[in-house]
Amino acid sequence: MKPPLRIGIAGLGTVGAGVVKLLAEHGRLLSLRGGRPLKLVAVSARSKAKKRDIDLRGVRWEKDPLALAEASDLDVVIELIGGSGGIARQLVRKALASGKHVVTANKALLAMHGTELAELSEKKGRILAFEAAVAGGIPIIKALREGLVGNKVSRLYGILNGTCNYILTTMRETGRDFDVVLAEAQAAGYAEADPSFDVDGIDAAHKLAVLTGAAFGCQVNFEGVHVEGIRRVTSMDIQFAEELGYRIKLLGLARETRYGIEQRVHPCMVPLEAPIAHIEGVFNAVVVEGDFVGTTMFQGRGAGQGPTASAVVADLVDVARGRDMPAFVVPAAQLAAKKVAPIGRHVGAYYMRLMVQDRPGVIAAISGVLAKERISVESMLQRGRSQSGEVPVVLTTHETEEAAMQRAVARIAKLRAVAAEPCLIRIETF
Amino acid sequence: MKPPLRIGIAGLGTVGAGVVKLLAEHGRLLSLRGGRPLKLVAVSARSKAKKRDIDLRGVRWEKDPLALAEASDLDVVIELIGGSGGIARQLVRKALASGKHVVTANKALLAMHGTELAELSEKKGRILAFEAAVAGGIPIIKALREGLVGNKVSRLYGILNGTCNYILTTMRETGRDFDVVLAEAQAAGYAEADPSFDVDGIDAAHKLAVLTGAAFGCQVNFEGVHVEGIRRVTSMDIQFAEELGYRIKLLGLARETRYGIEQRVHPCMVPLEAPIAHIEGVFNAVVVEGDFVGTTMFQGRGAGQGPTASAVVADLVDVARGRDMPAFVVPAAQLAAKKVAPIGRHVGAYYMRLMVQDRPGVIAAISGVLAKERISVESMLQRGRSQSGEVPVVLTTHETEEAAMQRAVARIAKLRAVAAEPCLIRIETF
Repeated sequence: MKPPLRIGIAGLGTVGAGVVKLLAEHGRLLSLRGGRPLKLVAVSARSKAKKRDIDLRGVRWEKDPLALAEASDLDVVIELIGGSGGIARQLVRKALASGKHVVTANKALLAMHGTELAELSEKKGRILAFEAAVAGGIPIIKALREGLVGNKVSRLYGILNGTCNYILTTMRETGRDFDVVLAEAQAAGYAEADPSFDVDGIDAAHKLAVLTGAAFGCQVNFEGVHVEGIRRVTSMDIQFAEELGYRIKLLGLARETRYGIEQRVHPCMVPLEAPIAHIEGVFNAVVVEGDFVGTTMFQGRGAGQGPTASAVVADLVDVARGRDMPAFVVPAAQLAAKKVAPIGRHVGAYYMRLMVQDRPGVIAAISGVLAKERISVESMLQRGRSQSGEVPVVLTTHETEEAAMQRAVARIAKLRAVAAEPCLIRIETF
Repeated sequence: MKPPLRIGIAGLGTVGAGVVKLLAEHGRLLSLRGGRPLKLVAVSARSKAKKRDIDLRGVRWEKDPLALAEASDLDVVIELIGGSGGIARQLVRKALASGKHVVTANKALLAMHGTELAELSEKKGRILAFEAAVAGGIPIIKALREGLVGNKVSRLYGILNGTCNYILTTMRETGRDFDVVLAEAQAAGYAEADPSFDVDGIDAAHKLAVLTGAAFGCQVNFEGVHVEGIRRVTSMDIQFAEELGYRIKLLGLARETRYGIEQRVHPCMVPLEAPIAHIEGVFNAVVVEGDFVGTTMFQGRGAGQGPTASAVVADLVDVARGRDMPAFVVPAAQLAAKKVAPIGRHVGAYYMRLMVQDRPGVIAAISGVLAKERISVESMLQRGRSQSGEVPVVLTTHETEEAAMQRAVARIAKLRAVAAEPCLIRIETF
């Protein structure tokens, strides 16, 4: 058997501890599958004292994570520190520069500096692997770069943030509002104390940017993602969605259009017949449409200790066997710098919900604005009297250009009879 | 750039023609992704005259497919002839023996001789790749051998035969019976003129045997698969299933039990809440349960020119990049020869549908037989009068051992009031 693959881990949070456990528990199995032992040699983390429930006997403790990058007795460094800059970025750069392979779960880092790190890894002839950065245990990076490598991908979309999906699922099941469900999710550990990374769509956008690179062979462009979170989705909208035959999901979507690559993260109305409408709770799913393979879907747990450790170890076995692929499907120098399709050019159908004064002429005024923008209404739903005098009006449109829709919404918001900010949700068809 | 990967294809049916098209259409993209050009050098097929709508200019035609195995100007042979023995087996053996990599879509060959071929490929240091053999374009072999490599798989199950799934879906949607729907499927090209490979479960069993090897790292054992097809499923059973909250699917299932590896292919009652219940028509899906990753599901088109060509080309890119894995996750010499768990030891719930004479005492007699075998009934459903005097009685049981259930069914079938052969379908819970 070949000499062991010597591993260093930087960061011993939930994921790091999971990797240590997996390596220990499946040592024999991994030697067979990897063709050589996978040996944990050194670790580094902020606090040595913290209770972690893992056995680190015989493993060197480095105070400074950067020491792992330069240690002469390591073949691969696993970066689990997180953050798009700072130590994480330094560590990955240094490790590659000093000839080590790098495995990372850091989506923010890849979303911001993916192209640059891919270049560096190729220059050094080392592997940059990041299966754990997107969709937890689902081997979607491998699917894009290898399993579906024979396809030109036309579109990709997915549920990429388990926290948002959990919140939306619970809102639907319980009829409770966003704030209440978020607070519960925080108490249950499904959402962070500062939830904005998740609920504002940033985490999903990081992952989408990485997926887009791997699917389309283009430079990773996080700035090019149009991002909206789920804070403005109300339980009323979720109920209307069901009535109309839809479910509301926070999706990340990427596709090639004649204006460039379109990358969007926002709440979507998804038809109930679509398989992705039924991915509930903390599960993630990614749908890939390829010209030869057709539509494929991959689903599983998108986060958590076990699934993420599973992904990190899959990357380690690739490294152990010397199995390499360019980080984003084609060599870094060949990564296309694709134009960003402006969101205003997006064409699709829309759901709009307004709260209006219940008096004559309101519907006529709204219809007038839409007609002026040549937006054709597919269905309209008005609910009877209310005590406050405000009633919801819901309408869905046929396909129209986003820019026209936004102009119409701005004008409708200014109508005297329209009480609150209109709620606009894009309808996706698959 | 490296020299081209020189490819020979044996067999130019639907899949072979698809591979030729894909290589031609995505030549530039594949050079980038594979790190070298993928060059089709030679082909062989039964009839040169057949119209195929592919461009073979500059490609050598070999009359004898075995000539591809020995040609000095080829690096890899793609075997698309089919069949578990004969020319296909000879070709794969010869090609490996003469130092060529082999890509095949031949599930029958792998199900019967997988272990032996894996040994030969390792002895020769050549790649044996077969993504296209199971579940069409879904990269499930790669997922098992690489993406989920860090897991001990506890259970695997899937819809592995698109023809059966199409027939069952159509029976449910139209209320029509098996024979009628099969005839339609044959007319539409979804089923073969001789449908027995598909509808009797053999094709699914071949695929299951291959998946089991890759998931559990054990010798491929087709003989160890318990196989039942879908001929005996009636539209009446499909209707009862819906009433009870189930959908009938032909599944292939494999899991480790204390009696050994259990491999089964047969119609199953699947709870409507299970995602796999909603895989309809010609789609395939495979669910993998791993100890770290949890439950993952992979779905897509299970057959057809595009999806299968997509899988073959993914294997070619692995070969082009020299990315190797043992065929069945661990080295062939280490493949476990696992015991086969006897079907009689299977423990699960059951659905039984009887046609009985509508007269007093019948239910008591049936209940008596079940009580004697200590089988406890979960629900019983009897439908009112019929003109023929025969009425269906449907019952579901709690968990019981298969052997006891089979004894009970044999005895119930002999009751004078029981008209036709009882219909027994296993209920699966996930």
